[in-house]
Amino acid sequence: MEIEKLNEENIKTLLTKLLKRSPISYGRYEASVNEIIKNIRERGDAAVFELEKKFDKVDLTPENIRVSDEEIKEAYTKVDEKLLNVIRKSLKNIRSFHEKQRQNSWFTTDEKGIFLGQKVTPIAIAGVYVPGGKAAYPSSVLMNIVPAKVAGVPRIVMCTPPGADGKIYPPTLVAAHEAGADEIYKVGGAQAIAAMAFGTESVPKVDKIVGPGNIYVALAKKAVFGYVSIDSIAGPSEILILADETANAHYVAADLLSQAEHDELAAANLITTSEQLAKDVSREIDGYLPKLSRADIIRKSLENYGHLFVAENKEDAYDAVNQIASEHLEIVTKDPFLDMTKVKNAGAIFLGTWSSEPLGDYFAGPNHVLPTNGTAKFFSALCVDDFVKKSSIISYSEEALREAAGDIQDFAECEGLTAHANSVKVRFEK
Amino acid sequence: MEIEKLNEENIKTLLTKLLKRSPISYGRYEASVNEIIKNIRERGDAAVFELEKKFDKVDLTPENIRVSDEEIKEAYTKVDEKLLNVIRKSLKNIRSFHEKQRQNSWFTTDEKGIFLGQKVTPIAIAGVYVPGGKAAYPSSVLMNIVPAKVAGVPRIVMCTPPGADGKIYPPTLVAAHEAGADEIYKVGGAQAIAAMAFGTESVPKVDKIVGPGNIYVALAKKAVFGYVSIDSIAGPSEILILADETANAHYVAADLLSQAEHDELAAANLITTSEQLAKDVSREIDGYLPKLSRADIIRKSLENYGHLFVAENKEDAYDAVNQIASEHLEIVTKDPFLDMTKVKNAGAIFLGTWSSEPLGDYFAGPNHVLPTNGTAKFFSALCVDDFVKKSSIISYSEEALREAAGDIQDFAECEGLTAHANSVKVRFEK
Repeated sequence: MEIEKLNEENIKTLLTKLLKRSPISYGRYEASVNEIIKNIRERGDAAVFELEKKFDKVDLTPENIRVSDEEIKEAYTKVDEKLLNVIRKSLKNIRSFHEKQRQNSWFTTDEKGIFLGQKVTPIAIAGVYVPGGKAAYPSSVLMNIVPAKVAGVPRIVMCTPPGADGKIYPPTLVAAHEAGADEIYKVGGAQAIAAMAFGTESVPKVDKIVGPGNIYVALAKKAVFGYVSIDSIAGPSEILILADETANAHYVAADLLSQAEHDELAAANLITTSEQLAKDVSREIDGYLPKLSRADIIRKSLENYGHLFVAENKEDAYDAVNQIASEHLEIVTKDPFLDMTKVKNAGAIFLGTWSSEPLGDYFAGPNHVLPTNGTAKFFSALCVDDFVKKSSIISYSEEALREAAGDIQDFAECEGLTAHANSVKVRFEK
Repeated sequence: MEIEKLNEENIKTLLTKLLKRSPISYGRYEASVNEIIKNIRERGDAAVFELEKKFDKVDLTPENIRVSDEEIKEAYTKVDEKLLNVIRKSLKNIRSFHEKQRQNSWFTTDEKGIFLGQKVTPIAIAGVYVPGGKAAYPSSVLMNIVPAKVAGVPRIVMCTPPGADGKIYPPTLVAAHEAGADEIYKVGGAQAIAAMAFGTESVPKVDKIVGPGNIYVALAKKAVFGYVSIDSIAGPSEILILADETANAHYVAADLLSQAEHDELAAANLITTSEQLAKDVSREIDGYLPKLSRADIIRKSLENYGHLFVAENKEDAYDAVNQIASEHLEIVTKDPFLDMTKVKNAGAIFLGTWSSEPLGDYFAGPNHVLPTNGTAKFFSALCVDDFVKKSSIISYSEEALREAAGDIQDFAECEGLTAHANSVKVRFEK
């Protein structure tokens, strides 16, 4: 791999290229997605069955659209025990981390008789979308369901496309059942998103839709936002490694390659203050690459979105890290905790030699559903808070309201809202 | 006003009517909003100036688009001292409540050498939209800026349309300056949203856009979602009062009227278990209404979206309250705290006789930017959390990774991601 000097121009070019991968910039699919949504809204199940026949080549009916207990049992017989075992261990860690995110309702009082607070309530129905076929990752099923479960959501609905045999990929079913999905429907694509957003005879209307998907799924989620809540719109995966001369080039190369294998659009970048490290990593990558099973995908991803940048100093490196706002950031330096204090924007930050990124994908516990494409500047990892909402609580005593009454009336009158002023005034009239 | 029996049919009809008020269902404005956004993205300031000339009849230049310090000083001379005074008192309460929402970064450790956590960082630039003319409420300026300020956002940008004299409504400027806006631009409508989402020569690109607006603003916010973050899309205002025989009909009537005056699309509804109360409230409303300055608006709002429902029992009443998921809910019953425990969905809940809704609009401290149109089922009041994002932190020791290595490799291999497995494996090879 080529080595480049880090400068403003380079970073700008990279950012422009990365942003073009964003699913929301593909305007040309919008019309067909809107057509699907309209169809589902107007015709419900009939449209779902028709679209599933067209896209997934299956004959669905009100009787077989929902995955049965028997099908779940059957899936367990087809899943390797090793996988089941690791799903359970991973689930324990994911649950444990997310339980720490739980927020309490809280209140504050004032002796005048004022009670103010925030009441936290889980949403009633969460909808989880899981892609089918090659893109079905049991780890992703866990990551999307667990935060809803920990939040206390009483009904978790999942949609995922069936194969041509009408069955769901067994590891997906097993992961969903282990994580606690209550109902699973065999629907995929934009039709699944529309069905969950508006409800059909078979698929319940949900309050929030989460989960990754292809371009049709991403655009459908954006279209139904407001009718329901959605998580952020996921783009291709990314890793950025910030390393100095203390980093092990062999490991850095392996971590860059691990992210690049996801997808031809995946981005794997290195920023280092050590030219020697950049050279060593370059050599390691060239050596490794041919040996990996997904070498073709990796090669394309690195060609288009992969760089080895050498920064003149740490400040330039920090600045670039914050501009890129990567989904995954590894800090492999002499003092990673110190360097972490300089990072403003990143989905997940992995510190030190032993915190390889796949540790976060599968096992450590924090969510692997992370903001991509620079959206770590304003979005966060999927979390328990995504599945609750908060009601403000306001209770004033007569004494407290009497004291505030004049101010409230003044403010309301200044805004020309006399009935607002009146609603306070009447309470203190003789 | 007429009195109706509460039943499933009634509630369904009301919900359907309420939902039709949602700005996101007005498909026909989308094309012109998309045109404006495209224009701003491609031509920047030139497009902003052109659109401001067209819509607000003002000649903007790079020199006068930003509100100057002199203009802010001038605004202070035009604002009533009473208003300034109440703005400052209200600001204190809003700040104090929002400071309690602040969340710390947190971490957890395991003696194996595992450090996991969440780092909370404010977004870098917040964009606040403030409507112009009649719809400009200084209280709303405070409610949108304070949470960003308390979150620690270092740069708060505001856009608001100028009058035909090229000036901003003085109370808006004063409220913005008091709350802590750093930069104020004279741009309104969809062009303001597009300018903040993509940046122009004069208006900076922001990370998140909040604030109410007309249908063009709402649709523009939805269109730029994903490029930036946005708050929820606000619809017309709503109040729902849950009352029993202990409620004061005079006050209940005043509170219903206060919300109905906002807008012809505003919704003011009563659900009560006492037929006598419903009758008294009906009489009170009929008596009051002609005396109020905004009687025409109120009459239309009540005719279309206002009801006095008598419920057979408390359970039916709770159920309807949760189905409606009102922006504002007043509970005026014998034991409002007990009844509040039954409420799952509401933007803000006002408890007891002395907690009149305008108290929350102006003074108590909780945010008055609240979810409308049933979206309290999944959205919350604007809060400090809206202006921060969280990065997961993962740090494993060699010992901890060694112990997890086998499981991570198994999981990665089951998902067919061999380079993921490899990135862990290489660390423990001889």
